Amino acid sequence: MTYCVGMALKDGLVMVSDSRTNAGVDQISVFRKLTTWEVPGERVISLCTAGNLAVTQAVVDMVSKGIILDDEDEPVSMMTVGGMRDAARLVGKALRQIEKQDGEVLRQQGVEVNSVFLLGGQVKGGRMSLFHIYAAGNFIESTEQTPFFQIGETKYGKPILDRVVDYDLGLDDAVKLALISMDSTLRSNISVGPPLDVLTVRRDALTVEMRRVIEEDDLYLKDIQKRWGRALRSAFKRIPPMPPEGEAL
Amino acid sequence: MTYCVGMALKDGLVMVSDSRTNAGVDQISVFRKLTTWEVPGERVISLCTAGNLAVTQAVVDMVSKGIILDDEDEPVSMMTVGGMRDAARLVGKALRQIEKQDGEVLRQQGVEVNSVFLLGGQVKGGRMSLFHIYAAGNFIESTEQTPFFQIGETKYGKPILDRVVDYDLGLDDAVKLALISMDSTLRSNISVGPPLDVLTVRRDALTVEMRRVIEEDDLYLKDIQKRWGRALRSAFKRIPPMPPEGEAL
Repeated sequence: MTYCVGMALKDGLVMVSDSRTNAGVDQISVFRKLTTWEVPGERVISLCTAGNLAVTQAVVDMVSKGIILDDEDEPVSMMTVGGMRDAARLVGKALRQIEKQDGEVLRQQGVEVNSVFLLGGQVKGGRMSLFHIYAAGNFIESTEQTPFFQIGETKYGKPILDRVVDYDLGLDDAVKLALISMDSTLRSNISVGPPLDVLTVRRDALTVEMRRVIEEDDLYLKDIQKRWGRALRSAFKRIPPMPPEGEAL
Repeated sequence: MTYCVGMALKDGLVMVSDSRTNAGVDQISVFRKLTTWEVPGERVISLCTAGNLAVTQAVVDMVSKGIILDDEDEPVSMMTVGGMRDAARLVGKALRQIEKQDGEVLRQQGVEVNSVFLLGGQVKGGRMSLFHIYAAGNFIESTEQTPFFQIGETKYGKPILDRVVDYDLGLDDAVKLALISMDSTLRSNISVGPPLDVLTVRRDALTVEMRRVIEEDDLYLKDIQKRWGRALRSAFKRIPPMPPEGEAL
């Protein structure tokens, strides 16, 4: 399983991904699910993947090497694509090619192509954007009203996002929020696990601001886990019990 | 969709259920999903249902009227069954009969029988217990280590349960916890909705201690929603941001 969360905020982009891959409970590995293409001053594009690893790796490989996007003669890759919307179409197109090539054989084996992506970044001359690319290869873009997307095991970590996320949240706060959301997921689903990949890109900087790998024994992650657990328990204690029927609060 | 949570704790049983039923987004109704059979001083048995409403209503009807459990001559119902484990078998058996009778026709219509149940209570001479009854009609019982079960849309409300639930939690606290867990679910999944049914049964009392219907505009529910949201946001603010790489916390 996977959990990735991406936010496109006023100040820029935050993407956080786990890196546990499992095929059954006795075949668990670490695979990075966050890939970044960067030409400082020119482009930063980052892709989070969830789903069948053979499919998502093939997509990453195709968009790295380049494919023919429309009727152009030259293949387009993440390093040459002209804007973020075309980058999203590139991922969608790669996914559809893999579906065409492998879909039927995979389904015969009981495997679905069924992979989804978060794509965020900015290309010089365009604006920063974040897309959620569906298994069908189509996609939606985030907005100021809905500035985050999640893929994979999304539910455990959604309530805190729903309550705190805001387009005006600073990048530091957004990283903290993504890690708290990730922590709720780690606790409740053992198939989501560290190391965690964290990326921030400030709007219009066209370069990665921070890229970090947070290991299981990372002190900040442990500190968040401890503080958040304690804060929830203490918030719980402070809420009064339900008054008897008919009595005021 | 449905969300029900049940806890069998040192002091007794708590069950909380939503009551929204939907078949698509334009056919939303209120159906109670918590049914209680009570003979004060002799038995309290309570059943929460999730899944196809035609199936769960048929199960409730069958276990109310009685079915032949083993090789007995007389049908056994929730009002006559000798203990909680037999009550769980009764539900499982009813579910299997409906599967046998309607399963194939339902599947032809693209509907799965796929219903699950929480069954809690106590019958005089036996101990209080809580069961999670699966779609196959088999079941597991809660323990001191794992004193709660959820059915339906379980994930949004699980992180807070994972962090706070404890066998020694008092019944008042358990109701509060179940409502907070329910609130996270209500916020994140529109197909789960009030009124909420709340039931508590004190261990060995053999009678319902509290049964409440909490409507959408209930002041305590609104108070919990407001306080919990505020507490989460303030806990979030108090957690420090991630220090730069290589710097201590």
